[in-house]
Amino acid sequence: MSSEAETPEKALKAGRGYGRVYNFNGGPAALPQEVLEEAAGELLNWRGSGMSMMEISHRDKRVVQMVGDCESDILALLGLGSEWRAIFLQGGASLQFAMIPMNFAADGAVSDYVNTGMWSDKAYKEALVCGSKARLAASSQKDDFTRIPDSFDFSQEARYVYLTANNTVRGTEWRSFPEKAPAPLISDMSSDFLSRPLDLKNFVLAHAGAQKNVGPAGLTIVLIKPEFAATGKKGLPRLLDYRTYLESDSMYNTPPVFSIYVAGLVMKWLRNKIGGLSRMAAINQKKAAALYLAIDQSQGFYRGTAREDSRSLMNVTFRLPTPELEEAFLAQAKKEGLWGLNGHRSVGGIRASIYNAVPAEAVKTLIEFMAEFQRRA
Amino acid sequence: MSSEAETPEKALKAGRGYGRVYNFNGGPAALPQEVLEEAAGELLNWRGSGMSMMEISHRDKRVVQMVGDCESDILALLGLGSEWRAIFLQGGASLQFAMIPMNFAADGAVSDYVNTGMWSDKAYKEALVCGSKARLAASSQKDDFTRIPDSFDFSQEARYVYLTANNTVRGTEWRSFPEKAPAPLISDMSSDFLSRPLDLKNFVLAHAGAQKNVGPAGLTIVLIKPEFAATGKKGLPRLLDYRTYLESDSMYNTPPVFSIYVAGLVMKWLRNKIGGLSRMAAINQKKAAALYLAIDQSQGFYRGTAREDSRSLMNVTFRLPTPELEEAFLAQAKKEGLWGLNGHRSVGGIRASIYNAVPAEAVKTLIEFMAEFQRRA
Repeated sequence: MSSEAETPEKALKAGRGYGRVYNFNGGPAALPQEVLEEAAGELLNWRGSGMSMMEISHRDKRVVQMVGDCESDILALLGLGSEWRAIFLQGGASLQFAMIPMNFAADGAVSDYVNTGMWSDKAYKEALVCGSKARLAASSQKDDFTRIPDSFDFSQEARYVYLTANNTVRGTEWRSFPEKAPAPLISDMSSDFLSRPLDLKNFVLAHAGAQKNVGPAGLTIVLIKPEFAATGKKGLPRLLDYRTYLESDSMYNTPPVFSIYVAGLVMKWLRNKIGGLSRMAAINQKKAAALYLAIDQSQGFYRGTAREDSRSLMNVTFRLPTPELEEAFLAQAKKEGLWGLNGHRSVGGIRASIYNAVPAEAVKTLIEFMAEFQRRA
Repeated sequence: MSSEAETPEKALKAGRGYGRVYNFNGGPAALPQEVLEEAAGELLNWRGSGMSMMEISHRDKRVVQMVGDCESDILALLGLGSEWRAIFLQGGASLQFAMIPMNFAADGAVSDYVNTGMWSDKAYKEALVCGSKARLAASSQKDDFTRIPDSFDFSQEARYVYLTANNTVRGTEWRSFPEKAPAPLISDMSSDFLSRPLDLKNFVLAHAGAQKNVGPAGLTIVLIKPEFAATGKKGLPRLLDYRTYLESDSMYNTPPVFSIYVAGLVMKWLRNKIGGLSRMAAINQKKAAALYLAIDQSQGFYRGTAREDSRSLMNVTFRLPTPELEEAFLAQAKKEGLWGLNGHRSVGGIRASIYNAVPAEAVKTLIEFMAEFQRRA
């Protein structure tokens, strides 16, 4: 974190080039400026190919290599061994909501869902649509989704236990995952993927839409154990069967090449510039701790919406005393170059998404703005 | 077309900036240089938003407007009225192969397929997987897919007739579509979408992967009549139901925003720089005519693989006397900056894909190279 005091105006002029704002969007969200600069610099001629990454054949050896490197980098960053693969799909988490039960719990098989809000609820409902006997093994609905459940009613028959690692809407995040579920775990990790090291020992699948920590929307990264994929239902449409992606190295049909390329640049940034996921986690913890401290020390002016033990390090959600003050807060924040602070449209309030690429300076500037806003209110 | 003789070397230095090659890839394929320049220029700050188009929320009013404009521009270019919509999906043609029967011919309903090669064959097979009683209403397999069929055995019970407007592998293209099919037409238009005006009066759906004439891979444009979509099967997973996209203006979940943005720039290029689809078709006809003439006047050295009445204006496929000569041709072409001329890996030979964004100069340079190669062979 920069040690010198810095006003938003100074930051706009000095630290942030290209007239860029501080971007707290929930997703699509901030990308590292270095990554964007590299992409812009070679947008008309990728590494001497004479073509844009948007124009070059996905069967070109250099592109096949680039896609393979992106997979290897993801697995290496997470420290995953050869029992794991990373594959590249499309359709976002919403298509995963359907593909998971279609592959692993169709024809009336039991599946367990932990409901921590909108995204897991959608996943649960799609499982019912896709022919699984889906159950709620836990839910924090009666607490208005302000926390991660701590007790579970797992089925002995379930094919898998499904959970949402981080809830972008409610600002809650799992600190650790259930250790004693009878079935293997599957998680939607869209909004905290690659924000910290992960212990995936009880998992068989984790999916993540790229548009939070990884790259442009339109790419879904799925971590999957091929051994588990092999247990999937046979006779599915090709693009809805995980084996199709495993067997073709994500090249059964044209993959979203440009999005994978940007994701690959982000992997290099994580590795070389940040220094890996432990270092990334430390940075993220610092950013979140500073912001939550500002909320907690505001004498009730700012009120965090998630319970302390369930607070997300990615999406910091809070309220102000009145809706009018919230509106004024958002409007003034924009004027100061602090963008995307509105809460999810289903809940309102304020949400500061502080993903990997949101610099500490942005958080610092937000905290200063919050203090100033409170003084004037 | 440029009237002055121009060597590839000159073209590389003068006409083609950024060290770009002439790009004959089958897809992903050439994009207009102006479009890439505009995208590169605003990659770190889209129209004063202070964010990249890869970083800005899809719920931002300016992005919603951009997506809406892209839809309007597509419909306007094609002259389609209010009975049509254009929606933005992911998963390419391969996912459409499944979604079409899932929505419109599941539970044993009859569907008619016209087989003109690999892509329609895949679509037919997915229809069988998805529970449709799919039939082959025509096939040019016995002619090794060198032509578009001219007689059909349509079923009176079929829910739709499916065809592939342009076969990128075989270099064949429908000149006009069946007038008297008992069922409405559905077409994969991936590789000639927006290359010419279209008469869609007998159609209810047409889909196109963006990565030929429209933009980066990872975006599928579907033209669909909402009236037809309403007849689809109920109770499908949300992302596999066309109504989901119609009801949400393609915003049920995060769409592939950056790909839609580039597609939108291509629409503006088509409208403002080219002057619409009639003008685009005239340019494409000239390019193709010149290239086919060069093939036909080569005294059998170059042999077109498609029958004259079925020749594609997008993918010009031909052979040389021997595989060795073909290999030498491809290697030397690359040295001259003519890239992506290899035939599809399933058939081999040469394929010059001359989509909208491939300039007339590129075709002229290729023709000169072909003459020179033949002289030296």
